[in-house]
Amino acid sequence: MAVIHDPMRVPPRTTTIYPKPFDEGFEGRLKRPLTDRLGLTQFGVNLTTLEPGAQSSHRHWHEEEDEFIYMLEGELVLVTKDGEQLLKPSMAVGFAAGDRNGHHLVNKSRYRATYLEIGTRSPNEDVTYADIDLRAEKRGGRYRFFHTNGEPYE
Amino acid sequence: MAVIHDPMRVPPRTTTIYPKPFDEGFEGRLKRPLTDRLGLTQFGVNLTTLEPGAQSSHRHWHEEEDEFIYMLEGELVLVTKDGEQLLKPSMAVGFAAGDRNGHHLVNKSRYRATYLEIGTRSPNEDVTYADIDLRAEKRGGRYRFFHTNGEPYE
Repeated sequence: MAVIHDPMRVPPRTTTIYPKPFDEGFEGRLKRPLTDRLGLTQFGVNLTTLEPGAQSSHRHWHEEEDEFIYMLEGELVLVTKDGEQLLKPSMAVGFAAGDRNGHHLVNKSRYRATYLEIGTRSPNEDVTYADIDLRAEKRGGRYRFFHTNGEPYE
Repeated sequence: MAVIHDPMRVPPRTTTIYPKPFDEGFEGRLKRPLTDRLGLTQFGVNLTTLEPGAQSSHRHWHEEEDEFIYMLEGELVLVTKDGEQLLKPSMAVGFAAGDRNGHHLVNKSRYRATYLEIGTRSPNEDVTYADIDLRAEKRGGRYRFFHTNGEPYE
């Protein structure tokens, strides 16, 4: 049993694992990883803050892993193939594994926005990125990135 | 993809699946089940409110399923074998599968308290209750309850 008294004080990760050139423009995304500190392994928990202008990820969908978002602070725009939807505090969003409607969150406001993001930790996963020449494979917990034609990124 | 605009308006469940006499005293526990509405299956998400005097469950631990709590509103007392600990909004707690330190949450305040609770959905599970003559087995998604001597409850 582990208690985190102030999750906003957990040091954030600001880097991404995307290959170039898709790793740029994520400076305003602060992911505070709570999972290991909580002693959990079956699903991942991040407390994520997006500064104005920042985005959660490239628009994507997961083949194997359910994903859950709970809005805590500020306003974000949820972008899917169906358009844009405004998210405000206390709203909840579910992205079921295998739902091919790619999504991401964008902060188009003047204030920071913070949410909980929780996703299953599957050893194997395929991620499809809807708008760019990128897909990801996770095998045994390790991600590799490919062009849509199957060639690997460096 | 599914959005719940106001999770507090989801009809709450106030019943328990405990056998008699352990099903009494849960009137002030309101579990708002978000999982199905979000289209998720791999982990369960409840928005749970405890009125003054209410408790989350009997003190227990899970053999197979990770559990996560995020405090949203009010104050609760986390009770484990190590004693009591006060939980306030924005605090996060993790209960790892197999950690034999039974826990539950009790509202000892004068105000309602609300939290997100998220747990892995394993088809099979064993739950041990620390303080009472009860244990639970989930097989194929269905719970059955037993005395600690192995005799089933009706």
